[in-house]
Amino acid sequence: MKVRVGSKTKSFRTVSFDPIRNEVVLIEQRLLPHKFELFRSKDFRATAQAITDMVVRGAGAIGATAAYGFAQGLRVFKGKDLRKFEAHAETVYRVLAEARPTAVDPVNAMNAIRLKLGKGSTVEARQQIALTEAEAFADEDVQHCRELGGHGAGLIKEGMRVLTHCNAGWLAFVDVGSATAPIYTARNQGRKFHVYCSETRPRCQGSTLTAWELAQEGISHQVVADNAAGHLMQRGQVDLVIVGSDRTLGRTGEVANKIGTYTRAVLAHRHKIPFYVAIPLSTIDWNLKSGLEIPIEERSESEVLGAWGITKKGKREYVRVANPSSGAVNPGFDVTPAELITGIITPAGIFKPKELWKNRWRLGGD
Amino acid sequence: MKVRVGSKTKSFRTVSFDPIRNEVVLIEQRLLPHKFELFRSKDFRATAQAITDMVVRGAGAIGATAAYGFAQGLRVFKGKDLRKFEAHAETVYRVLAEARPTAVDPVNAMNAIRLKLGKGSTVEARQQIALTEAEAFADEDVQHCRELGGHGAGLIKEGMRVLTHCNAGWLAFVDVGSATAPIYTARNQGRKFHVYCSETRPRCQGSTLTAWELAQEGISHQVVADNAAGHLMQRGQVDLVIVGSDRTLGRTGEVANKIGTYTRAVLAHRHKIPFYVAIPLSTIDWNLKSGLEIPIEERSESEVLGAWGITKKGKREYVRVANPSSGAVNPGFDVTPAELITGIITPAGIFKPKELWKNRWRLGGD
Repeated sequence: MKVRVGSKTKSFRTVSFDPIRNEVVLIEQRLLPHKFELFRSKDFRATAQAITDMVVRGAGAIGATAAYGFAQGLRVFKGKDLRKFEAHAETVYRVLAEARPTAVDPVNAMNAIRLKLGKGSTVEARQQIALTEAEAFADEDVQHCRELGGHGAGLIKEGMRVLTHCNAGWLAFVDVGSATAPIYTARNQGRKFHVYCSETRPRCQGSTLTAWELAQEGISHQVVADNAAGHLMQRGQVDLVIVGSDRTLGRTGEVANKIGTYTRAVLAHRHKIPFYVAIPLSTIDWNLKSGLEIPIEERSESEVLGAWGITKKGKREYVRVANPSSGAVNPGFDVTPAELITGIITPAGIFKPKELWKNRWRLGGD
Repeated sequence: MKVRVGSKTKSFRTVSFDPIRNEVVLIEQRLLPHKFELFRSKDFRATAQAITDMVVRGAGAIGATAAYGFAQGLRVFKGKDLRKFEAHAETVYRVLAEARPTAVDPVNAMNAIRLKLGKGSTVEARQQIALTEAEAFADEDVQHCRELGGHGAGLIKEGMRVLTHCNAGWLAFVDVGSATAPIYTARNQGRKFHVYCSETRPRCQGSTLTAWELAQEGISHQVVADNAAGHLMQRGQVDLVIVGSDRTLGRTGEVANKIGTYTRAVLAHRHKIPFYVAIPLSTIDWNLKSGLEIPIEERSESEVLGAWGITKKGKREYVRVANPSSGAVNPGFDVTPAELITGIITPAGIFKPKELWKNRWRLGGD
């Protein structure tokens, strides 16, 4: 997508690869929205560290980073001994898989590449296959987001006010994004509309990342406090809600997503406002039988008790907001039941949440 | 209420008066929760400025501050000429009335005192009446909060988890508070329970003021992000919601309160959790016929786009959190319809919201 750098506008992917320097190139997300900078990772260990340190975050984005990191690691192997090459590949795989141990995308991405390596009969051929497959993985991520955008764009009519939550934008993928894909496609189709970005406390991904993305793309938007969603809906100022998903239950249509998603779904339901969830197929879990089985990550208290931002002097600082002697509870995600979801937008089309299961062959299930 | 100062615990009112020095004594709320300090206002103009600058805020608290400030101003008059005294009183009244032009409490408090002044036949007698009436006004505010607490305390059973929003605590009144009054009374009656303080973005009155109050009083509590209320309710972790009110419509039972109150009411209704509003009688508006008539204050964008807190070096600073080129919408209040409110706790008892009108003679209406 486009980024304004100085007076110019350039196109960037969240994750890309420089084959000449053998470097994984990432948008340094820890500096956003206050500073745009590229992070060049010089070897696979640095790439794993970048995943751990959240230079890059978001399901699709860390999957592609691990894919490129895997190819990057294999490409430094010297020699022709396939057995030694295999041992080296195993090391690279483990280092990258352990970068974010609970995430499935890096492992899935590397597994897909590993399955293809056997087609090469020499070290060099396998190194080439790894790079080609990593590029294919990244391109497929973009392609899926574009298809999702194509299916969802028709929901956004001229003049609508769209509420989003958190960041399921292009920064969470290789490009385009999931919840933002229909927004970018509708804009490309020439329609004008307005987006309300929920701040998304405690980590504020809405007011930082989503607002930054929309600003780069010149899309009309405003930040709203999480508390204001109900009031805006009550006064008829929201026409559509689109959010992302961290895990979507294929059997029940339940959606686990950033804390606060459930609240917006309840409010939208009361006000008869369409509530859509945009998902890449990789988030569908075909096994779990109930949303209650989804473990809800309890995150650090400090996120709720303060905020990160830029001081007047331009320094990035954490300020403690809450009473110093008080603690906090900080569940990271919540689960929205199928009955509150109007539709699930996927690269394969829009489905009712209860219809995912019977369409599982189209949605990558068994 | 109690405040820990160093290793000791002392009792303070939010607003009090030092008759020897002729000073209004306020808890300096702009420094809370990070620093406890008293603000001594030496003359009525400084008292008006303290109201304007929000050294003190909250309906009951600024009413009492104006009442004391009025007495403070009258007491500096020298001479015996009643006519000159009246002119002086008019000046004091105007300066204090203009400190927060949209607030009704300062004006109501001073009007009540003014009505009594005629009983004194000398300047000295009238100065004495002003002080006595100001003290009576403050004492009555405390008494009303205590009565409210007595009526509401029975709702809080042993072991309950109570969710609050914003600060309708003793810092908003002379003492005790409205939404917090049942909490303090239930504690005094020996019950143990836990309070979740909604952070209350954008100004964070829940994580700053309410959490500070509860910490001083040693009441078990935790801060939660506004986004987490729905999840906690869904998982059965909230038994009761108590909030305050900025304006309560006597005809319809609708409640205007801090932005986010409506969202909590909708969530509580879905989960069949009792939702109570605690109000001083002064917030009842007997005139308006619909909540849509209530003007919703649109506040500064900067509140949503950043946060005030304490840096690691202990300095109070504003940090910009949101994307620098993005704007915000910031409605300060929302309106909760009667159908979502289980009961309204008043100094005169608990009422169904639709029953306020027929009980108006008990509730201070005409």
